[in-house]
Amino acid sequence: MRELAGSPGSWSGLALRLSQFAFAAASVCVMASARDFANYTAFCYLIASMGLQALWSLGLACLDGYALKLEKDLRSAVLVSLFVVGDWVTSILSFAASCSAGAVVVLFDRDAFFCSRDPHLPCGTFELATAFAFLSWAFSGTSALVMFWLLASP
Amino acid sequence: MRELAGSPGSWSGLALRLSQFAFAAASVCVMASARDFANYTAFCYLIASMGLQALWSLGLACLDGYALKLEKDLRSAVLVSLFVVGDWVTSILSFAASCSAGAVVVLFDRDAFFCSRDPHLPCGTFELATAFAFLSWAFSGTSALVMFWLLASP
Repeated sequence: MRELAGSPGSWSGLALRLSQFAFAAASVCVMASARDFANYTAFCYLIASMGLQALWSLGLACLDGYALKLEKDLRSAVLVSLFVVGDWVTSILSFAASCSAGAVVVLFDRDAFFCSRDPHLPCGTFELATAFAFLSWAFSGTSALVMFWLLASP
Repeated sequence: MRELAGSPGSWSGLALRLSQFAFAAASVCVMASARDFANYTAFCYLIASMGLQALWSLGLACLDGYALKLEKDLRSAVLVSLFVVGDWVTSILSFAASCSAGAVVVLFDRDAFFCSRDPHLPCGTFELATAFAFLSWAFSGTSALVMFWLLASP
């Protein structure tokens, strides 16, 4: 298989995984710190989805680190197929969660004016968690595309 | 380039394009028929995104029909690159719009109980339009994957 930026078992791949993990974990922590987030399905789903993303990315980051240390090649067809499935599932779920949370934040802020009417609603915290989720998705989507490309062009 | 179900200029490709167009157009019509949809950013975005999806799919359906009639081959690298970019842009926008509208519908129905409190809010119509948008995205995502596969494995 070809060498591509972001391939499994490379330094760029490790950096990509660590970025996904960092932003997903930040999103979970920020959202979980917000008051009353549990009243809204979209925000609970964001936590669930970002939790899954963080676990998956951390697992693959450990695998990348292990492969780099022992100089193993992770680009076999079976492993890449596994990574493709996992990456696509987590990245589609992350994108859906980010868009859902974003839609609810926009509704609160611009359509229903909940943020200006209720000063106790932590709109800034919701926005920050959603922004982190979008960043995590951007890195996760990049990984998914790289894996798909590796699978399609062996 | 290889022959793949859903390739441009094939009968399966034409069927895929017509399905995308039909569900996107249905979503636009249903949402536009709902009272007060314009008060909500997510629903306006759904109309814009599904409108773009319908136009793009109709254009490619016409191109597929033309290629089938004159027995032309549309699977050149330049054309497939164009289709990949267009398909990915429309399908990411469609998915974002579907998820956003879905999040707002769930918020109205389950979290804030707007649907049971305000009988004039056309929640059923919002739900139907969102369901059509998800169906249109499912076909559009399939097209995008097929095109990407064709581009990656010439």
